[in-house]
Amino acid sequence: MADDARVAFGALEIPRPYLLFLGDMTDPLDQKTAAGIHEWRPEWCVGQYRLTPETNSLGLVDMDPEQAVRAGAQTMVIGTATFGGRLPDAWEDIVIRALQAGLNVASGLHDRLSMRPRLAKVAAETGRKLYDVRGLPSGFNPQVGSGHPRTGNRLLTVGTDCAVGKKFTALSIERDMRARGINATFRATGQTGILISGGGVAIDSVVSDFLAGVVELLSPDNQADHWDVIEGQGSLFHPAYAAVSLGLLHGSQPDAFVVCHEAGRQEVLGYPDFAIPRLEECIELTVALGRRVNPAIRCAGISLNTASLSESARTDALAEIEQQIGLPCVDPAINGTGAIIANLGL
Amino acid sequence: MADDARVAFGALEIPRPYLLFLGDMTDPLDQKTAAGIHEWRPEWCVGQYRLTPETNSLGLVDMDPEQAVRAGAQTMVIGTATFGGRLPDAWEDIVIRALQAGLNVASGLHDRLSMRPRLAKVAAETGRKLYDVRGLPSGFNPQVGSGHPRTGNRLLTVGTDCAVGKKFTALSIERDMRARGINATFRATGQTGILISGGGVAIDSVVSDFLAGVVELLSPDNQADHWDVIEGQGSLFHPAYAAVSLGLLHGSQPDAFVVCHEAGRQEVLGYPDFAIPRLEECIELTVALGRRVNPAIRCAGISLNTASLSESARTDALAEIEQQIGLPCVDPAINGTGAIIANLGL
Repeated sequence: MADDARVAFGALEIPRPYLLFLGDMTDPLDQKTAAGIHEWRPEWCVGQYRLTPETNSLGLVDMDPEQAVRAGAQTMVIGTATFGGRLPDAWEDIVIRALQAGLNVASGLHDRLSMRPRLAKVAAETGRKLYDVRGLPSGFNPQVGSGHPRTGNRLLTVGTDCAVGKKFTALSIERDMRARGINATFRATGQTGILISGGGVAIDSVVSDFLAGVVELLSPDNQADHWDVIEGQGSLFHPAYAAVSLGLLHGSQPDAFVVCHEAGRQEVLGYPDFAIPRLEECIELTVALGRRVNPAIRCAGISLNTASLSESARTDALAEIEQQIGLPCVDPAINGTGAIIANLGL
Repeated sequence: MADDARVAFGALEIPRPYLLFLGDMTDPLDQKTAAGIHEWRPEWCVGQYRLTPETNSLGLVDMDPEQAVRAGAQTMVIGTATFGGRLPDAWEDIVIRALQAGLNVASGLHDRLSMRPRLAKVAAETGRKLYDVRGLPSGFNPQVGSGHPRTGNRLLTVGTDCAVGKKFTALSIERDMRARGINATFRATGQTGILISGGGVAIDSVVSDFLAGVVELLSPDNQADHWDVIEGQGSLFHPAYAAVSLGLLHGSQPDAFVVCHEAGRQEVLGYPDFAIPRLEECIELTVALGRRVNPAIRCAGISLNTASLSESARTDALAEIEQQIGLPCVDPAINGTGAIIANLGL
C-alpha cells in the first residue's frame, strides 16, 4: 500500500522535460492543459508539436517527436481537451510515432491510452510508458479514509463554483511560500495540476467510497513546518460535484482554506437555477464540515479572479471584500498571495 | 441514456424466485444478504442451498440447483459476505453447476462474476445471466447531476452512522405506506437492498463525479402522489463516507428525511475518535445541505434502533427523543413507521 501510494501520488514522476502536443486546435481554450503546463513550468517544456500551421501556438519551438528527442524531451504530453475526453482515432498514429521516436506519452483524457491495444503493444515493444493521469493506476488498491490526524500543515483552496481559480491559487501560494523560504508542496487533484506538478490524483475519477481515503494518501504525514497546498475541486454548493468537494475537504483535514471566487459571477456555471453562494456562506459551511476532521480549521483569505474587471473596479472589489469579510482578499495573478500567507502567521 | 437507466435501475429486474446460496457459513452475520432477502421477501425465496450440514439455516427448504429449478427458481443468489468480497475459487464450480441447471446467478460481492472468464463462457453457452449488483452495468454511461427538480415525492433515510438501520427503516416505510394505500417505491442504494427489491444501484461503487447524477436517475420523475423511499448510506458526519452521503442527499432532492440512530451508540463504528453527532446536529446539517436542491426539505421523524434495550428502557428512550426533538420517534421493528407517515400529512 505504501508503495502503491508512492507510485500513484508522485514519487514515480512522469519523466521530463515535455514535448507539448497541441493537435490541430485553433482555440486556445482547447489547449488548456498545455497552456497551464507552459505557464507554470516553462522549464519543463522543450517544444510544441502542432499538426497544422493554423494550430494555435504557445510560442514554443515547433518540433516533431524525433526532433524533440534530440532536444532532450522525455515525454510527449497530450495537452488538449477533446470532445468527451476522447482520443481521436487519427491520433493513435501520432502516439505510436512518439513512442517509436523514444518518448513516453502522457494524457489527461478520460479515454485511456493504455486501454488501446495498439498503443499498449507499441509501448511494450519500445520500452516506453503510457501515463494516463486520470484514474488510479491499474492494480492500485485504494483504502477508505481513517480520519487520523497527520503531521505537518495543510491548506486547501475551495470555491464558490467550478473554474474560479482554485488550481491557479494553490500553485500561486506554493510559489509564494517557497519564495519566502517556506517548505511547501502543491498537491494536484486534477489532470492539469498533475501534469504541472508531476504527481497527484484526479479525484473526480475515484470511486466515492474511497474518496477521502485517497486524499489522505495524497497528503501524508510531513515535517512540522511543512505546508501541503491542496488543489480544490468543485464546490460544496454545486448540485453535481458537492460530494467530490466534501470528500476532498474531509480527506485533506485542512488547517486553513482559501475561498476562490470570480468577481461578478452570479450563477453556477451551466446551472442557471443555482445562485453562487455568498462568501460568508461558503466560509461558514466549509468550517462547519471541515471541523469534523480538524477542529482548528480556519479561513485564511479570499482569492478573487478579477480578469473581467477594469483596474479601478478591481481595486474597489478587493477592498470591499476585505472590509466585508475581515480577511485578506487578493487576485493572485495581480497581487500574489503574500497577504494570505502572512495571515497564516508565516 | 434512458434505456441505460432502465437497465441499471430496475426495469430489467433479476428473474425471481430465488434460490439462496448460503455457502458453508456457520455465522448468521456472514449470511446478512440472504437473511435480508428472506426477511423482507419470503415469497421470492423457494429454498436455500447449504454446502454442509453445519451451515447456518434460514429455515427454508434445502435444495440443490437442479431441485431448485424443478421448484421454479429462476436465479441463485449468493447471499453471503466473504472476506474482502472475494468469490472463493471453489465456488466457481458451484456457480457453473447452477448455470448448467438453468439458473441465473446474482451476486453482491465486490468480485464480479462476469469478470471470471470460465463463468462468462458457461453463462454464454447456457444462455443464463450473471448479475453483479455492485458496480454499474458494463457499458452504462453515467451522467453528472443536473439539479433539476423532479415530479413526485422523495423521502431519504439518513443516519448518525453506518449500520444503524437506514435500509430497514426505508423498507419499513415502503411497506407501511403501501399498507395505507400510498403509492410508494423503495429505491435501493446498496447490494442487499438491490437484491431485496430487484433494482437499484450500489452507490458506493460509483465514481464520485457521477454520484449525484446516478442518484437522480435512480429516482426519476413520477406521479404527483408517488413517494420514492430512498435507502440512505453512511453519514454526513462519517470521516470516510460523508461524500457518499452528500452525493446521495443532493441527487435525491428529498422532500423529507428520517434520521436513523442506534440507541446508546457513542462512537462512529470503527472510528473511536469520532463521536456520534447529536440528533439535532444531524437534522440541522441535513437541512442546511439538502435545501440547496430542495428548499422544502424537512425532517419527518426519528427511527431508533432499540435492539439493545429492555422494553421499559425502549419506551423511555422513544418518549425522551420525541420530547427532545418534537418529532415522532419509532423503532420500526417494534412500532412500525405509521407515526412518521402520519407526520408527512399522508
